[in-house]
Amino acid sequence: MTTDFSSQEFFADVTEPIRYEGPDSDNPLAFRWYDADRMVGERTMADHLRFAVAYWHSFASDGSDQFGVGTWDRPWLSGDGDPMDAARRKMTAAFEFFEKLGAPYFCFHDLDIAPEGTTFAETCSNLDAMADEAEAHMERTGVKLLWGTANLFSMPRFAAGAATNPDPELFARAAAQVKHCMDVTHRLGGENYVLWGGREGYDTILNTDMARELDQLARFLHMVVDHKHSIGFDGTILIEPKPHEPTKHQYDHDSQTIIGFLRKYDLADEVKLNIEVNHATLAGHDFVHEIAVAVDEGMLGSVDANRGDPRLGWDTDQFPNSVDEMALAMHEILRGGGLGTGGLNFDAKLRRQSVDRTDLFHAHIGGMDVMARALLAAHAMLADGALTGAKARRYAAWDGGLGREIMAGAKSLSDLHDLTMREQLPEAPVSGGQEALENLVNRYVERVR
Amino acid sequence: MTTDFSSQEFFADVTEPIRYEGPDSDNPLAFRWYDADRMVGERTMADHLRFAVAYWHSFASDGSDQFGVGTWDRPWLSGDGDPMDAARRKMTAAFEFFEKLGAPYFCFHDLDIAPEGTTFAETCSNLDAMADEAEAHMERTGVKLLWGTANLFSMPRFAAGAATNPDPELFARAAAQVKHCMDVTHRLGGENYVLWGGREGYDTILNTDMARELDQLARFLHMVVDHKHSIGFDGTILIEPKPHEPTKHQYDHDSQTIIGFLRKYDLADEVKLNIEVNHATLAGHDFVHEIAVAVDEGMLGSVDANRGDPRLGWDTDQFPNSVDEMALAMHEILRGGGLGTGGLNFDAKLRRQSVDRTDLFHAHIGGMDVMARALLAAHAMLADGALTGAKARRYAAWDGGLGREIMAGAKSLSDLHDLTMREQLPEAPVSGGQEALENLVNRYVERVR
Amino acid sequence: MTTDFSSQEFFADVTEPIRYEGPDSDNPLAFRWYDADRMVGERTMADHLRFAVAYWHSFASDGSDQFGVGTWDRPWLSGDGDPMDAARRKMTAAFEFFEKLGAPYFCFHDLDIAPEGTTFAETCSNLDAMADEAEAHMERTGVKLLWGTANLFSMPRFAAGAATNPDPELFARAAAQVKHCMDVTHRLGGENYVLWGGREGYDTILNTDMARELDQLARFLHMVVDHKHSIGFDGTILIEPKPHEPTKHQYDHDSQTIIGFLRKYDLADEVKLNIEVNHATLAGHDFVHEIAVAVDEGMLGSVDANRGDPRLGWDTDQFPNSVDEMALAMHEILRGGGLGTGGLNFDAKLRRQSVDRTDLFHAHIGGMDVMARALLAAHAMLADGALTGAKARRYAAWDGGLGREIMAGAKSLSDLHDLTMREQLPEAPVSGGQEALENLVNRYVERVR
Amino acid sequence: MTTDFSSQEFFADVTEPIRYEGPDSDNPLAFRWYDADRMVGERTMADHLRFAVAYWHSFASDGSDQFGVGTWDRPWLSGDGDPMDAARRKMTAAFEFFEKLGAPYFCFHDLDIAPEGTTFAETCSNLDAMADEAEAHMERTGVKLLWGTANLFSMPRFAAGAATNPDPELFARAAAQVKHCMDVTHRLGGENYVLWGGREGYDTILNTDMARELDQLARFLHMVVDHKHSIGFDGTILIEPKPHEPTKHQYDHDSQTIIGFLRKYDLADEVKLNIEVNHATLAGHDFVHEIAVAVDEGMLGSVDANRGDPRLGWDTDQFPNSVDEMALAMHEILRGGGLGTGGLNFDAKLRRQSVDRTDLFHAHIGGMDVMARALLAAHAMLADGALTGAKARRYAAWDGGLGREIMAGAKSLSDLHDLTMREQLPEAPVSGGQEALENLVNRYVERVR
Repeated sequence: MTTDFSSQEFFADVTEPIRYEGPDSDNPLAFRWYDADRMVGERTMADHLRFAVAYWHSFASDGSDQFGVGTWDRPWLSGDGDPMDAARRKMTAAFEFFEKLGAPYFCFHDLDIAPEGTTFAETCSNLDAMADEAEAHMERTGVKLLWGTANLFSMPRFAAGAATNPDPELFARAAAQVKHCMDVTHRLGGENYVLWGGREGYDTILNTDMARELDQLARFLHMVVDHKHSIGFDGTILIEPKPHEPTKHQYDHDSQTIIGFLRKYDLADEVKLNIEVNHATLAGHDFVHEIAVAVDEGMLGSVDANRGDPRLGWDTDQFPNSVDEMALAMHEILRGGGLGTGGLNFDAKLRRQSVDRTDLFHAHIGGMDVMARALLAAHAMLADGALTGAKARRYAAWDGGLGREIMAGAKSLSDLHDLTMREQLPEAPVSGGQEALENLVNRYVERVR
Repeated sequence: MTTDFSSQEFFADVTEPIRYEGPDSDNPLAFRWYDADRMVGERTMADHLRFAVAYWHSFASDGSDQFGVGTWDRPWLSGDGDPMDAARRKMTAAFEFFEKLGAPYFCFHDLDIAPEGTTFAETCSNLDAMADEAEAHMERTGVKLLWGTANLFSMPRFAAGAATNPDPELFARAAAQVKHCMDVTHRLGGENYVLWGGREGYDTILNTDMARELDQLARFLHMVVDHKHSIGFDGTILIEPKPHEPTKHQYDHDSQTIIGFLRKYDLADEVKLNIEVNHATLAGHDFVHEIAVAVDEGMLGSVDANRGDPRLGWDTDQFPNSVDEMALAMHEILRGGGLGTGGLNFDAKLRRQSVDRTDLFHAHIGGMDVMARALLAAHAMLADGALTGAKARRYAAWDGGLGREIMAGAKSLSDLHDLTMREQLPEAPVSGGQEALENLVNRYVERVR
Repeated sequence: MTTDFSSQEFFADVTEPIRYEGPDSDNPLAFRWYDADRMVGERTMADHLRFAVAYWHSFASDGSDQFGVGTWDRPWLSGDGDPMDAARRKMTAAFEFFEKLGAPYFCFHDLDIAPEGTTFAETCSNLDAMADEAEAHMERTGVKLLWGTANLFSMPRFAAGAATNPDPELFARAAAQVKHCMDVTHRLGGENYVLWGGREGYDTILNTDMARELDQLARFLHMVVDHKHSIGFDGTILIEPKPHEPTKHQYDHDSQTIIGFLRKYDLADEVKLNIEVNHATLAGHDFVHEIAVAVDEGMLGSVDANRGDPRLGWDTDQFPNSVDEMALAMHEILRGGGLGTGGLNFDAKLRRQSVDRTDLFHAHIGGMDVMARALLAAHAMLADGALTGAKARRYAAWDGGLGREIMAGAKSLSDLHDLTMREQLPEAPVSGGQEALENLVNRYVERVR
Repeated sequence: MTTDFSSQEFFADVTEPIRYEGPDSDNPLAFRWYDADRMVGERTMADHLRFAVAYWHSFASDGSDQFGVGTWDRPWLSGDGDPMDAARRKMTAAFEFFEKLGAPYFCFHDLDIAPEGTTFAETCSNLDAMADEAEAHMERTGVKLLWGTANLFSMPRFAAGAATNPDPELFARAAAQVKHCMDVTHRLGGENYVLWGGREGYDTILNTDMARELDQLARFLHMVVDHKHSIGFDGTILIEPKPHEPTKHQYDHDSQTIIGFLRKYDLADEVKLNIEVNHATLAGHDFVHEIAVAVDEGMLGSVDANRGDPRLGWDTDQFPNSVDEMALAMHEILRGGGLGTGGLNFDAKLRRQSVDRTDLFHAHIGGMDVMARALLAAHAMLADGALTGAKARRYAAWDGGLGREIMAGAKSLSDLHDLTMREQLPEAPVSGGQEALENLVNRYVERVR
């Protein structure tokens, strides 16, 4: 029997849903740019952006960090009593927030929504029960599940990794957990299933057999793919690149590393990438680079929309607030045809000092407005061919004559040696025009209306 | 007709070849650890280490940096007059150094040994003439060529890349140059041919079509491989990972990126990796990691032995001087069966204040002793199974029972779910023993004799 | 006798001065935001921003980098013949550019405008002659000198530093050069004199006596200050923070390091800071932090307006293009009362592929528009007290009662211990409101008109 | 009444004290280098190194990180019941470890040894009671207190800083806590009292008045200094540099920043520095640099001996294991006359996978051996003047003639201009000899016996 928490209001300071009020609004609890039904090209903003709220940072956390305990005012977390009651209270808070914010999606780890039991069976049963709750909330509110994932990193059993654990019994434990979480995700209509590397990596190479561990990881993924097909889940399986943290070296280092891995192990047709901004920057890449890599390979799955601090060396998971950064990434996403089954998940957390519940709204509203504004700039750039046209012109010589022959494999080194000996080909470099292009992008960003 | 520079002595302060004098020597111009003929396992030190001197840093450079002109006392570089005379003088100096140092190998770019002419034909003819000179020096001294490579980055024509240039005529120019350089390398008995990415990357993604450029790069490599076979060159083709510098993003980012690229374009059986310490660390990897990746994939080709400054964000190309760092890397190299056709090339430059010619000796002697000491520590660790044994024990459960079944593909997620439901598998983590292993490695390093 | 280069036109593609055309202009060779005479508060934009063009990057360089020779189309640099003729040609090009761009100021190193002679006397006489030329150009065009500085880092003599050289004779050489350069700066009406650390730092601590070198540096600065007074120069003496590059450790590491140094050596009243964006970020600081530090200490002198690439570890010296970054810094500058005798100097260089002369215009126009837009946003924020008001409210309790007593020194630890024992003071944290403030700043940036 | 936990043994696998067995020992639970009574120069190793164990990492933590719960086998932490009983159990474990390891010192935060009560009074009384316990343990074992400190960062009240809090009542709360902790430290014979910045910094400059906060911090420190004198504590007051983490910007950024701050606020004679290896490297400095800065200023207080991972951007707090790194730092420490009232505190934590209690021994033994070996190398270098002599020779010209006159203030810029005009001073750079010096240092390290 379920206690009725839906009558309880946790965000009482936000008395009604966040509305679009336009760029001139000074209401901090209104959207200035995110206007869900506004058409941008042939889709609505909502359809382009597919925002999701992350259950973990916003509902399962309390503001603790490595140097101190929690600070946030989260009444749904406090209190003793039955952990399942607490889980229901948390879910009530979450759906109240989703609804008031107007977020169409959410994402979760199994352990975010349901507590561990004392046995695996009990853990599963807890998760099943909370899935019942979630189903009712989703039905009531219309909020959908962008993706689910299993937490394979918090518990001591997975200290040395889950799929890459030196102990096959712990691999089995992880497999069991993922099976259950995939089933729940499927049942809740999840549109993707995500595997974040967690502790799949190493703390020291001194005790690590990388070759073995990568084989294990691939085996695990094959099992996930097989299971997906066996249960008729038609969502996308996603892996998330991250270079390090918590481990010294995460195997899913960055987009190209993962793509190489998937190709090696014959998984490239079955698995796509969930790319996070701050993971990109920790790997030394601009976010737009990681997106472009995935788009070029046809492997962009979804996005964790957050940001890092360019001066800090850890995953700060801040809410996005740079239109400059996001406009370029959205441009690549649009170039690739959009997010598909994916979306923009705010894998972002409030700062520890942002203790008020209402800060959750400020953060998400800011993030959504930034992404909306970025979408508008990106769409205008793409519609005008501002960058794509410039690129097409730059490489035009490859579309004919010598260029085409070379790419067709019709020329050997010796052929080109002869050609170069014979003719004095022009050699002067052509301007790359970087500064002019940067100005052009700025123009698009500042003109968004 | 060749002027006889071999009578000219540039390193007169070093009156005789550097000798091994043993650990107790205080002679800074003697080896304390590198004892070429000492047996380490079944090979001599010389056979294990296969040292090469880099022509560019040590003979073609003058100590200039982005903030100032050259400072080094390099009489072979100064002076006007015929560039070919200067090239011969430089080569005389180089071989005097190789001989006095006792380095068995050297490495070069085409433009290090021969000046550009006013036409491509003249450039080729200069290179051919200098190859004649080199042949004579090699014959005279017994010094061999570890690898050659073409400089595809210094000239304005390649400002936007060589193989990845937006202009196919510049691709052709690069191809012609590589063809000629491969031929010369082959003729000189080079044991490998290297392609360093140079400017194969982008300065800004705003003007860059990565997909096109990567296709071009793959095409270029296929042409190189075809040419290798067509001329009967049986050396190894090598690519060198580097994450950035001079470009913002180098396509040959790190080992795993390259391996993924080679696999995608069906080049993985034909090309191996030349891994540089400072490029690894710029990519955020320990050197040993990059080596281990390549060894595990059977794709380690050769090594650029240098070091970076862990506090600085550019390629400092300092001489190696950390036995701690190198012992772990040598351990992986030995685990993989050694360097094969590759070697340890000192892609390292003196600091700008190290203006004396004799500083070149100090730097190389230090580097060679460090590598020799690292080899001794690594060999002892491997012989004792200090790390390999610990790893084998750690993963032993994968060698039988459940582990073997999983890896054989005999278990589905559901099977493992059932198993986990049915049996309460043990879950307690086992110590990774990192600190104890670090102590153990230190023990090996300090015990080298 | 001076050849008349002023009849020669180097930027013929830009047929007339760059004009302000407003935000809707699509003309890449027009300002969209920089409107020199527009009033912003009580000053014109021009008076707020005080733009300067850097002679070195834009006129004395050729696009070479550590990996390749020059690429830029700079006819004033090419050609043999008399170095003084070349210097005049370069200056003609520079002033044509200043005028067409509408930059009110320029900045130079002595060696940018005049070639070294074979003796110090000849070097001085070259500089004096070029100062004559500059004077005529300045008179003709109305362009003014923001600051001059001496190049104490390019020549071999200063490989081990200038003021911090182990050799007092090289200290003397540096002093002589600075004396001459200060005199020329004074004569040209320079509004500041800058000392950039150059090679004042160390490559290795193994050979460096930091205590001695810092004493030398302080002595040098005292001599500079004394000379300033002795010649009646009423400009500001500025030092420029940079953490490293070219040396491993630059003594002028960051703002706080310099301020501590100035205070220790009793120079804090005489010397201010010239803060560069990319030097701030290399030191691990946001630019706004470095500005705020200097403003709080009353020591902000001038700004080198450029940007780094947050993924790269060296000084990329790109043109500024982030209004987000610059708006916060301009806010601090305005809070401190503006730039005083300083200005915004574009210590920024084109990318090596930006080979066209017109790229220089694109880059500067982009930079000026970004700074103008940043000024508008910053001014609006400050006028509204958007941030300053929030801060005043946050710390209000320090303005009275307990706070005032504590700061007045009226309370000991024991007093506060007693107080805390006696009364249960409220302890709940108050929201720092970071995300809401970030949204607020975005609002100001996007509303600039 | 105190339960007698001293009969309980937590480290039963280590049956007797760790002994020195010499370099040839293969016993991982023996010292190979740390031989407490061995004379090194005029002091014993123990007197030089003054090792301390950090209570927090080794006894109050459980292996949790931001991504997961605790993993370590720490029976003294588990269990419910009276928090004071738990605190006594923890202390019993700690002193058992100190004794078996043979560490002469420990360090603690107030909250490491005593739990918070529900009121400040209760917290104080808990601390007093645990101080009684500690006193008994110290008496029994001879283990001494290197320093105490107050935890001003874990509790929500200090989310916005302690001394730098926007709320003076929380400043008061922090002051009260420090007062109590200083009194306890004094009573226990602590040889120093440390203030680590904790959250004294900012998360965003948008809400931060740095000038106010720095004034507050200085006021706080003055109160600490006054209290020290008022209670007759003759230990040293220490501040610990750290550039960031947990805050984005810590005010105690690095040694030079702190020294500048202390000098500005007239605290330089009263406060010294506690320098941590990993904090140095996070600030972009080699550890030896930070030590040298403090030594040169006469402000080295104590050392937190740990290490970071040069590839990771957060404070990994690993145990030291690089003799190379530590030998240079010990050389500077010895040059400065040694550690004074300070010591080498292992502010280092086991990796999360190092779950066994015995791993604590491996880690500390490894760290102590590394420091002992570093001491031996450093002492030999200093005794031989290997580096100091080279430096003295390099700067010798400053000790007489022109150098002395310059430093005495007898020369103006104009004087040196005249001199340079008049005489052609030699300008050729002298080799900095970096590579030769690096080889020399390696020689000392490898020769340690």
